[in-house]
Amino acid sequence: MTLSPLPIVRLKPKTDARKLRHGSPWVFANEVVTDRRTKAIAPGSLAVLEDAERAALGVVAVNPDSKIFCRMLDRDPGAQVDQAWFAARIGRALALRERLYGTPFYRLIHAEADGLPGVVIDRFGDVAVVQPNAAWAEAQLGPMVEALVAVTGVSTVIKNASGRARALEGLDEGQEVLRGVAPQGPLPVEMNGAVYMADLVGGQKTGLFLDQRENHAFAGRLAGGARVLDVFSHVGGFGLACLAAGAEHALAVDGSDPALALAGEGAAAMGVSDRFETRRGDAFEVLEALAGAGAQFDVVICDPPAFAPSKQALDAGLRAYEKLARMAAPLVAEGGFLGLCSCSHAADLGRFRTASIRGIGRAGRQGQLIHTGQAGPDHPLLPQLAESGYLKALFFRL
Amino acid sequence: MTLSPLPIVRLKPKTDARKLRHGSPWVFANEVVTDRRTKAIAPGSLAVLEDAERAALGVVAVNPDSKIFCRMLDRDPGAQVDQAWFAARIGRALALRERLYGTPFYRLIHAEADGLPGVVIDRFGDVAVVQPNAAWAEAQLGPMVEALVAVTGVSTVIKNASGRARALEGLDEGQEVLRGVAPQGPLPVEMNGAVYMADLVGGQKTGLFLDQRENHAFAGRLAGGARVLDVFSHVGGFGLACLAAGAEHALAVDGSDPALALAGEGAAAMGVSDRFETRRGDAFEVLEALAGAGAQFDVVICDPPAFAPSKQALDAGLRAYEKLARMAAPLVAEGGFLGLCSCSHAADLGRFRTASIRGIGRAGRQGQLIHTGQAGPDHPLLPQLAESGYLKALFFRL
Repeated sequence: MTLSPLPIVRLKPKTDARKLRHGSPWVFANEVVTDRRTKAIAPGSLAVLEDAERAALGVVAVNPDSKIFCRMLDRDPGAQVDQAWFAARIGRALALRERLYGTPFYRLIHAEADGLPGVVIDRFGDVAVVQPNAAWAEAQLGPMVEALVAVTGVSTVIKNASGRARALEGLDEGQEVLRGVAPQGPLPVEMNGAVYMADLVGGQKTGLFLDQRENHAFAGRLAGGARVLDVFSHVGGFGLACLAAGAEHALAVDGSDPALALAGEGAAAMGVSDRFETRRGDAFEVLEALAGAGAQFDVVICDPPAFAPSKQALDAGLRAYEKLARMAAPLVAEGGFLGLCSCSHAADLGRFRTASIRGIGRAGRQGQLIHTGQAGPDHPLLPQLAESGYLKALFFRL
Repeated sequence: MTLSPLPIVRLKPKTDARKLRHGSPWVFANEVVTDRRTKAIAPGSLAVLEDAERAALGVVAVNPDSKIFCRMLDRDPGAQVDQAWFAARIGRALALRERLYGTPFYRLIHAEADGLPGVVIDRFGDVAVVQPNAAWAEAQLGPMVEALVAVTGVSTVIKNASGRARALEGLDEGQEVLRGVAPQGPLPVEMNGAVYMADLVGGQKTGLFLDQRENHAFAGRLAGGARVLDVFSHVGGFGLACLAAGAEHALAVDGSDPALALAGEGAAAMGVSDRFETRRGDAFEVLEALAGAGAQFDVVICDPPAFAPSKQALDAGLRAYEKLARMAAPLVAEGGFLGLCSCSHAADLGRFRTASIRGIGRAGRQGQLIHTGQAGPDHPLLPQLAESGYLKALFFRL
């Protein structure tokens, strides 16, 4: 069978093709020749990218509706993007995770860095949750899911189509069970000795934030015999990890009743309900109330949602991080620990650190920075995008 | 007993005292009023620092011979720097390490961040090795060592006076047993399941590089069943950690016969001599020879000495890091791992990463960045100096 040839997209003469040859994964709309023919390419179509001298650079996914006009899929211009192609990518990603983890709970595909631009796949044992956050992945969902099932052996595949990235690609929202049967109720996931109840169908993102695993483990090292405060706890991430590591008590604060209910179920599954408490409310208000009551903790962790989700929101976001540090620091006992996390792409490590240090200083405290954490190794980075490591976790001793 | 009042050192009117009030630990020579009286202060003397309006900022250590004219010791201008003062600082540092580690092998004092500017103390069980790399610490060695013994209970204290920092402070070199008896022969130190033979008297720095412990552990996670190449191995840091984690074989390359002999002794103590090999030689020459012979490894780690020890050496250093990456990458089997480390203060993370990525690219390889490591939490940072985190470890999968 011969396939009909792919359309061609060509770089403008002024666009430097070297960055693509050196591994850069994206071509922006202002870098390509956009004639009537190019503009008519359907979002999610595949094409061959050429430089201005008509030398082929590789197979790309095209989306004329997105700022990211082309995403590099394969530097081989003759590559066939089919089930076997997906199987090779997924197999390579799986080999890394199987080397890193003893149990099948991890981010299996982390987008560009795993060779599938815009695609996120989290694995929870026999269940995979797919976020096809780019038009090409939505179009190729069939062979991708076939390959996923064949390579990993998962029995259930859930499509979770939510989040900001999809809107930028012009994709709709929604959830769908693509294979097998969705788990009835939350799925218990064990990490660092703690049990997290993951709601793979109704929860945020893929149901669990796997990226904090190494930071949970680090917090656990600080937590023996400690009183722990976990602010923005979601399903109990840091609090339950600290209890698993021997904390005396943990208080989880979150704005979501369903998340706190799952946290409580996790604590029950671990047999630590007597040492675990939850409080629903606005984090800043709860911090203020705790300070007013003179509460002190040995370990305080704040893991808020992205305060600076975009460049436009950067200044306001940094002020919010500073405020959070200022309000959390007084709750840390002398010699205790404060962990401050940011998952904002726009706030880089230096800016986030400065905001955090300023907030601690405004609270009249001084500290040592003992550890700077990041997303775990199942969230690899493309070296060319390494600046974009979004997750930062700063651990201070005050 | 009343002490004679300390001399006064005053900031120039133009010097911003706020950075000191916010925790900055240093005052440079061009920031203070240097009259005849100030210049006559003996290196290592204590003084009270005042701002231009004569408000006291704290007790500082003065060295008119150093670029760092004052080092902040205590923000309380009335503080008495005596044995009890040292005991409080050391006790606080000890509490952190005892929380982090199950065995008494760690960096106990990491200079400014532990409140003892310029002082490094590594602990190896009953033995402490002290590097008093600032004039004030040399002058206060007596009460400092008294406090060290009282707080930790170590029986032996060795002074190791070597390295670049001492020359900048106008201090001499040399080694001295201050307390107890120096160990006869190398001391076995267990980390991550590996055994390292530390030569506390004749070795480099304090005899063992404790700062790589977390990075050794990460390399171990990649090493099950792997063939490992450890370049600039010193006493076997990464190679032995990988063997402890189940590597099939490790080859350690170093320029020092004594270091490789200690590595061999460590392997023997672990009972893995049959899986461990050493090769003495220039690292670049050995890499070239291995490539020429078509050797392939699943994990290759390069942990060179500081190629960019100063700003002046930065460009040449970055070229050396790039060259090392370029020569090491071809030895990594497809799907294998390359770990590249830098302990150069002058080469920050961004620059080091760029040099490393360029080197890998020049070797015709592409990779994912799966982990960025740093010095362990027994090497805390003063937040104000957080940029200065000197140790970087980049783990790529190629």
